[in-house]
Amino acid sequence: MMDNERNSTLYKYDLSLFQTKIEKMVDLTELMENEVFMAFASYTTIILSKMMFMSTATAFFRLTRKAFANPEDCAGFGKGENAKKYLRTDDKVERVRRAHLNDLENIVPFLGIGLLYSLSGPDLSTAILHFRLFVGARIYHTVAYLTPLPQPNRALAFFLGYGVTFSMAYRLLKSRLYL
Amino acid sequence: MMDNERNSTLYKYDLSLFQTKIEKMVDLTELMENEVFMAFASYTTIILSKMMFMSTATAFFRLTRKAFANPEDCAGFGKGENAKKYLRTDDKVERVRRAHLNDLENIVPFLGIGLLYSLSGPDLSTAILHFRLFVGARIYHTVAYLTPLPQPNRALAFFLGYGVTFSMAYRLLKSRLYL
Amino acid sequence: MMDNERNSTLYKYDLSLFQTKIEKMVDLTELMENEVFMAFASYTTIILSKMMFMSTATAFFRLTRKAFANPEDCAGFGKGENAKKYLRTDDKVERVRRAHLNDLENIVPFLGIGLLYSLSGPDLSTAILHFRLFVGARIYHTVAYLTPLPQPNRALAFFLGYGVTFSMAYRLLKSRLYL
Repeated sequence: MMDNERNSTLYKYDLSLFQTKIEKMVDLTELMENEVFMAFASYTTIILSKMMFMSTATAFFRLTRKAFANPEDCAGFGKGENAKKYLRTDDKVERVRRAHLNDLENIVPFLGIGLLYSLSGPDLSTAILHFRLFVGARIYHTVAYLTPLPQPNRALAFFLGYGVTFSMAYRLLKSRLYL
Repeated sequence: MMDNERNSTLYKYDLSLFQTKIEKMVDLTELMENEVFMAFASYTTIILSKMMFMSTATAFFRLTRKAFANPEDCAGFGKGENAKKYLRTDDKVERVRRAHLNDLENIVPFLGIGLLYSLSGPDLSTAILHFRLFVGARIYHTVAYLTPLPQPNRALAFFLGYGVTFSMAYRLLKSRLYL
Repeated sequence: MMDNERNSTLYKYDLSLFQTKIEKMVDLTELMENEVFMAFASYTTIILSKMMFMSTATAFFRLTRKAFANPEDCAGFGKGENAKKYLRTDDKVERVRRAHLNDLENIVPFLGIGLLYSLSGPDLSTAILHFRLFVGARIYHTVAYLTPLPQPNRALAFFLGYGVTFSMAYRLLKSRLYL
């Protein structure tokens, strides 16, 4: 009887422990309680919001400098031939668009590789260092592109972000290659 | 003995309950049984398929309007100087390409922010409202761009999708900021 | 008593089984022990690294062919009017940029749809076939674009990758549509 009672107690204790863990997982908060994943979510949201801001910047410069890509966009500024003169490219608008495209080309790999890297169980401080360097590099890249700062400011910002993404890709492939 | 029997029964019942839950998780279907995540998966697949359709639209207009970007693409239409006249830009082709790029610029943030938002345990009906508005706005944006509809049709579609993504980013950062 | 003992033994056995499974999940390695997901992670990392290489190729051709998009980029090659002559487009640079943009337009849908497809519990060999075909097609697309190989080499590579992504989207929507 003694043994049975002890078993019973043990069993109740373990059960409640399991229950807590299991419920945590079932409602999916587990992933969001993983610190690396939460950090990735925060930095990703920030850098994607920054990238979206580039659309607003393009719209702003198109409107203030009256340089549009579509006839229907400048219909409000005049009729017929008068409106057509606004169908032109503008240096500042093109600069913002190049910065935006460069963001896209670099943030997409960060999104994919960073997500998989975050799920591969990296060291928290190493992971956060990667995320911070990338986000900092891309914000500095935008500042250097739009000001514009003399080279090699923009080039260095670009290669820093590039190197961070490759470092995550390397760690991911080294530990988890499955082809 | 009575107590032991009751415990035993309870234990069997709980065990089978656990087993179900645990097996569900081990084969990863858990994530796919989460309703918010399934909704995100469905809407994302639809909007990405729509975006891919833009490639086909570009190819279609390049072929029907004979406006190519690469010499090897128009080699079938003639030789030497005769083929070179097809190396040109065409208004309709450029319009489709701008719509495609705008899709890319807006769907990438939706992909990243929407995925993280879906995993952060939002209210199901709120989440589905976000997804529906975004997908509807982007489809309307394409229709407005390719028809083309007079402004502000396209601008409103753009800002609706933009606002939805920012709303998800805001909710995500408010509840889960970890820097 | 016999029954109780048997139960006890069963219970201990099952418990240790549970413990292993549960711990596996809590530290998130579960996702990375899923073979389909690991394969997706590996192929995605490879194709995104390939895409990032296009940035380096663009930079390489811009420098060797002295064709820049920004005044600050060619400041090192001369002053004033002398530098402005390097602000030009170059066929090879534009070709690399088109290949890069085409990558972006096709790899973004693969990223989103492939991730969700991987989580939907597909057959391992089917999933790996999809990933391999896509990665192979995109690498061949880049080779065909940059060489350049005569058509329809590039077109076939494009449509193979396109078809693979649509096949994953179809399987995903067929089994998991939730609107």
